[in-house]
Amino acid sequence: MSEKLVVIGGDAAGMSAASQARRRRGPDDLEIVAFESGNYTSYSACGIPYYLGGVVDDFDSLIVRRPEEFRERQSITVHIRHEVTEIDLDARKVRVHNLEDDSEFVEGFDILHIATGARPTRPDWPGIDGDGIFGVQVLDHARAVYDYMREHEPKRAVVVGGGYIGLEMAEAFNNRGMSVTVIERAPEPMTTLDPDMGKAIHEAMTKIGIHVRTGIAVQGFESRDGRVSAVTTDQGEVPADIVVLGLGIRPNAQLADDAGLRIAPSGGIGVDRRMKTSADGVYSAGDCAEKFHLVSRRSVAFALGTHANKEGRVAGVNIGGGYETFPGVVGTAASKVCSLEVARTGLNEKEALEAGFRYYTTVAESTTRAGYYPDAKHIKVKLVVEEGSGRLLGAQIVGEENAAKRIDAFAAMLWNDMKVDEIMHVDLAYAPPFAPTWDPILIAARKAWEKLEKSRGDT
Amino acid sequence: MSEKLVVIGGDAAGMSAASQARRRRGPDDLEIVAFESGNYTSYSACGIPYYLGGVVDDFDSLIVRRPEEFRERQSITVHIRHEVTEIDLDARKVRVHNLEDDSEFVEGFDILHIATGARPTRPDWPGIDGDGIFGVQVLDHARAVYDYMREHEPKRAVVVGGGYIGLEMAEAFNNRGMSVTVIERAPEPMTTLDPDMGKAIHEAMTKIGIHVRTGIAVQGFESRDGRVSAVTTDQGEVPADIVVLGLGIRPNAQLADDAGLRIAPSGGIGVDRRMKTSADGVYSAGDCAEKFHLVSRRSVAFALGTHANKEGRVAGVNIGGGYETFPGVVGTAASKVCSLEVARTGLNEKEALEAGFRYYTTVAESTTRAGYYPDAKHIKVKLVVEEGSGRLLGAQIVGEENAAKRIDAFAAMLWNDMKVDEIMHVDLAYAPPFAPTWDPILIAARKAWEKLEKSRGDT
Repeated sequence: MSEKLVVIGGDAAGMSAASQARRRRGPDDLEIVAFESGNYTSYSACGIPYYLGGVVDDFDSLIVRRPEEFRERQSITVHIRHEVTEIDLDARKVRVHNLEDDSEFVEGFDILHIATGARPTRPDWPGIDGDGIFGVQVLDHARAVYDYMREHEPKRAVVVGGGYIGLEMAEAFNNRGMSVTVIERAPEPMTTLDPDMGKAIHEAMTKIGIHVRTGIAVQGFESRDGRVSAVTTDQGEVPADIVVLGLGIRPNAQLADDAGLRIAPSGGIGVDRRMKTSADGVYSAGDCAEKFHLVSRRSVAFALGTHANKEGRVAGVNIGGGYETFPGVVGTAASKVCSLEVARTGLNEKEALEAGFRYYTTVAESTTRAGYYPDAKHIKVKLVVEEGSGRLLGAQIVGEENAAKRIDAFAAMLWNDMKVDEIMHVDLAYAPPFAPTWDPILIAARKAWEKLEKSRGDT
Repeated sequence: MSEKLVVIGGDAAGMSAASQARRRRGPDDLEIVAFESGNYTSYSACGIPYYLGGVVDDFDSLIVRRPEEFRERQSITVHIRHEVTEIDLDARKVRVHNLEDDSEFVEGFDILHIATGARPTRPDWPGIDGDGIFGVQVLDHARAVYDYMREHEPKRAVVVGGGYIGLEMAEAFNNRGMSVTVIERAPEPMTTLDPDMGKAIHEAMTKIGIHVRTGIAVQGFESRDGRVSAVTTDQGEVPADIVVLGLGIRPNAQLADDAGLRIAPSGGIGVDRRMKTSADGVYSAGDCAEKFHLVSRRSVAFALGTHANKEGRVAGVNIGGGYETFPGVVGTAASKVCSLEVARTGLNEKEALEAGFRYYTTVAESTTRAGYYPDAKHIKVKLVVEEGSGRLLGAQIVGEENAAKRIDAFAAMLWNDMKVDEIMHVDLAYAPPFAPTWDPILIAARKAWEKLEKSRGDT
């Protein structure tokens, strides 16, 4: 007998599961219906800053697949502008709000897949709902910011929060010729890196004329003629014609929580390795689902397209009757910030401490190519290493070019619990256009090993 | 009582051992004397094509450390233009030929470190010793080629052999405005890659005007006025004003062999994990020493600066009274060939077959950045995967930018015996300027896994 799969959320985690389930079960065997509250399906939210900064011209290029394509090519029905407002697990039904005509209806399911994404942190600051204050989580936001810029031609942009999205948006506004200020409460921007690495980012942004104000707390927003005019802080007012909030995001697990599903300590929807939630026949994937961190061995929350795609795929394989498991994450992330490439994986110092590790750190400075090769650029590699064992716990890289993707080797090393005395011998590629004979990764590991050896009194 | 270390060979493997030994044992405890047959110590042979092509202007920048510096900073005595001609293990002495004044003397040792490097393949072709025919293994060769180019202004260059050095030299001559022909016996250049990957390199070279003639065998050389004028082949004459031989290299183990040391099946000097040879107190490292291949589990020969540095360091630690082991290699190599970045690790098809594996392959084509991001370039990733288990045996990458160093993640995965079903989930860095949401590595692994799953009839 035919079954029905209902998917909540039409972006990567939702639609990759739908696609994968469809590959394994035909339309006669499995009906698939997806509800998306926004206007778009399967798009690249990570591309938004590049679109708004004019690096990517074509808005449509951010969209991987449209509802029509899902219908025509895969017999998957997608309703956009439809928000699921309630899940009834006993009755196997969801309540749906059609945002287009404000109607409501109920849809039954045999299998449910929850991919509700993330919710931006939005403090209760006075004036935060004013005109000209934006988040940039979903593609509809990109359209909204774009339209606002065209209509009002803002000259002064303020970005609240110096994380990935905040800094990418700061660069985007800077590209557009605006005067840009980043406001960050912490001592340095990019707090997913340790402050000593964040400092390099701070400097690179300052160099291209972006004002980075750290250690400053937002208190609210002023408006004039109905539009934002300033950000008020504990250090005075910062004038603003447009504001973007980049204060981080949390799993959007409310719907699942209300339905009685298990919510993990990290705030994500609790899932097992097959992406099954605590209820039979109910799956979850992507930003809303908890992730298992392979280094800290803890449940964590990460909002990242690459996880959403992988987890969605695994959910889809299992929904489709196959068997697959998602092993977890090691916390890899990368970003281009002005002239710098920035990347991290594993645990930073703060995270290592929180996870209960005793650790030490080493920093290696080297070049991305052989020193004598043209355009050899500076690269800084920081390692967080477990005391005693020498096991790698985390790595951070800041460099001017060909730096970020070097983190992938560390990610694979963390995945395999490698120790620095072995890492320093790994057979990484050497050729003058790509690395010094001792790759910066190997130098960092060797330094870490020598430090450990010395502490063991072994010299 | 003080001991004496004699080092044969003044490049990376020799001098890194000497330096490391010195760090651990002072001049009163260990006297260190090194003999180098050429004019230079501790230089980058890999940089030669870039110097000759005008990419690197400063000849001296290829030299990391000169004999005077070793003497002054580390109390290491280096004799250049001194060739060791014989090792007497029983008498603990080496016979040295001073090439400068043609004298000969004998030097005693307590500890010996053999770092005699590699010897180019030099077939017994008629005319091969003619003027204008060069190898480019050591820094003295670079000087010789440079002087010849300046004196005779050759217009037509022929490179015999389409491996790394051959292709890099072809590009160098092309940069200098010469008409360049590469002659390769195999069906495609770069035989360390499979022919389907080599084909892309062939095309890239053709595109910039380098003539690549494959499936053609050299028979000898013609000369006019005492200088090379043509390469004779089984397909006629190829005019040449200068010829470079890039026919591969073999471990230079003759001296060790004559002394009765164990020579490995790969032709390298037999060493254990501490870089000790079969004789007490005699070490070896670098191009002349065998390497253990962690995937094929065989003794192999690789001539690469990064191995020489690591192995030399390990030998030096052990000579210095410490304890360290070198685990082996996975066969990683990278090169920039015209507009292409090329890299490989593990086993290619031919090597997998020779090592007794049953394997299958997958090829994934993707982009180096998100598809919509400017300058996203084509990248091709080929995997060699063990049948049945899905274990990665090797990877090859060809791409237009940011491609080569991606091989490092594969190297770390091979190092840890990873299988494709796990590799496709590894937490590699994602951001639009650096990768699509599914990194090319993950796409390749996913394709390989799906192929395996299908062959298991599991769909």
